[in-house]
Amino acid sequence: MVDYETFELGDVVLQKGATLPNAKLAYKTFGKLNQDKSNVIVFLTYMASTHLDSQWVIKEGSALDPSKYFIVIPNCFGNGFSSSPSNTPAPYNKARFPLVTYYDNIKCQHRLLTEKFGIKKIKLVTGWSMAAGQTFHWGALYPNMVERIAPFCGSAKCSRHNFVFLEGVKAALTADAAFMDGWYKEKPAKGLRAMARVYAGWGFSQAFYRERLDLERLGYSSLEDFLVAFWEGFFLPKDANNLLTMLWTWQNGDISDNEVYNGDFKKALGAIKAKAYVMPGQTDLYFPPEDSQFEVANMPNAKFLPVPSIWGHFAGGPGTNPDDVKFLDNTLKELLRS
Amino acid sequence: MVDYETFELGDVVLQKGATLPNAKLAYKTFGKLNQDKSNVIVFLTYMASTHLDSQWVIKEGSALDPSKYFIVIPNCFGNGFSSSPSNTPAPYNKARFPLVTYYDNIKCQHRLLTEKFGIKKIKLVTGWSMAAGQTFHWGALYPNMVERIAPFCGSAKCSRHNFVFLEGVKAALTADAAFMDGWYKEKPAKGLRAMARVYAGWGFSQAFYRERLDLERLGYSSLEDFLVAFWEGFFLPKDANNLLTMLWTWQNGDISDNEVYNGDFKKALGAIKAKAYVMPGQTDLYFPPEDSQFEVANMPNAKFLPVPSIWGHFAGGPGTNPDDVKFLDNTLKELLRS
Repeated sequence: MVDYETFELGDVVLQKGATLPNAKLAYKTFGKLNQDKSNVIVFLTYMASTHLDSQWVIKEGSALDPSKYFIVIPNCFGNGFSSSPSNTPAPYNKARFPLVTYYDNIKCQHRLLTEKFGIKKIKLVTGWSMAAGQTFHWGALYPNMVERIAPFCGSAKCSRHNFVFLEGVKAALTADAAFMDGWYKEKPAKGLRAMARVYAGWGFSQAFYRERLDLERLGYSSLEDFLVAFWEGFFLPKDANNLLTMLWTWQNGDISDNEVYNGDFKKALGAIKAKAYVMPGQTDLYFPPEDSQFEVANMPNAKFLPVPSIWGHFAGGPGTNPDDVKFLDNTLKELLRS
Repeated sequence: MVDYETFELGDVVLQKGATLPNAKLAYKTFGKLNQDKSNVIVFLTYMASTHLDSQWVIKEGSALDPSKYFIVIPNCFGNGFSSSPSNTPAPYNKARFPLVTYYDNIKCQHRLLTEKFGIKKIKLVTGWSMAAGQTFHWGALYPNMVERIAPFCGSAKCSRHNFVFLEGVKAALTADAAFMDGWYKEKPAKGLRAMARVYAGWGFSQAFYRERLDLERLGYSSLEDFLVAFWEGFFLPKDANNLLTMLWTWQNGDISDNEVYNGDFKKALGAIKAKAYVMPGQTDLYFPPEDSQFEVANMPNAKFLPVPSIWGHFAGGPGTNPDDVKFLDNTLKELLRS
């Protein structure tokens, strides 16, 4: 039983040179495409997640209301549903899965929307974290198609500090001998757990831990319980090569790294015509608000709207903090009304 | 050729129960103890460092002027010079080296100062990072002996967030199969390198990386060069068990976790009589200024003096940024004059 559909992309020549044969884009839609195809929302997936982790946001009464909008969730390459190291046949399987960029993701998502559905305008593209990175790419690569973007807790270009944080995550994962350079037969569990522990300090803010929200709000019985049940519990079931594919995409994210903008980051930001609400988490340790401010300052139609939260990166998280969910939902509603 | 002296502590019963046989405290002194023994400064060592890494601060004209002061640098347990996993004979060698607290360190350092030198008053105790943790302990455990303290980029109690950051560091180090639960025959190089990469994102601030100070100010040729030469270069020569001993000390640091204060942190802070300049780095990611503010608010004679720097934790680092060195030197001079 599969709850999603698959768009067959055929052989896709990727930005960095490899050809991914019989590439697949897994997606799920909600609501109905109206007659003039003017009610389209694209909701993107974050790192190590699928549409299954995001679809809870889509419900009547919320900003992403399926009774009003036709909402598409395309799964990011590497997430295990769309083409990934874990589901691609040899020779491009496992450790040989090619390097995939945000550019590749968005080009293929664009094909889904245009070839499959004949969509010409998108009312809103939005998403959290790596999904925010994809959101910026949609805005920069299809400025005449995308009317609104709302990237939250993410960036248009991976900052150097963010890159270094992810180097630590990768180093912890791959330090496990069981990883075997990606040719593991059994899960490199020690590495996945180590990666989870490294992530734990980054995901939430100092203030979150100071206020003991892991216990008081999330209900864990101790800090160690939080580290094991929440963090190790999140990463342990994932495929290591899939994670590394997505981390590479993230680390190399840059809306200007393509033939359109030739590395001119300000030019790429300036080309985003969409009305944009850029929403960093006020205490996000790896997507700090300062980077969003720079982006907004260089975008023609953007507003800087930090999420007032001590939940760090999880200010935009998958429903982790109800107050932040409400803030985001209200903001998206306002943006959609405008 | 050994450039330091060793104080033989005999068998030391440690706070957590073990007895460390023939414990050794390695130390180095600078300058001359004056007749009334009123010119004593204790300068402590930070994580994974020895007196060799700190003594550059001690020079004529600087705050720690050996022509005026008798300066003692006692080496922290676990640093490879004082008793450590790497230099303790069986059965307490390597992975069996016992748990050592800041309390143990300071009690033994106190013995050195009183038994060996007959010192009754200390003009100043100071240090960076883990050395700041020791500094707070000196103030709380010997309030009638310590006249001034200047802890910089450190805390009186390891915060929960700081604890989590170090969990990530430890997980990366020990994910390497070569670590062999501490019974390695060969250096767990992969784990040490992974630990270094994890540390890299924490040690300097987002702004440091944004401003490319690794290249512009420290002179590395690329971000990867900085990660390898600076970070891996720092941790790779170290002994893994030694590092883990010090990390445990750090993670379990708490000036009130002893029979004097019975876990009453505010009481312990309130007992620090010394005139204190508490100097967090303004952009330190694991000793954020907010924690220092809480400490200062609960100390009777303390001043909150954040180091105005984007060098993150390295605002207090070993001479890494000359501007910060100057700030610290001036502040210490002011404190010593008062």
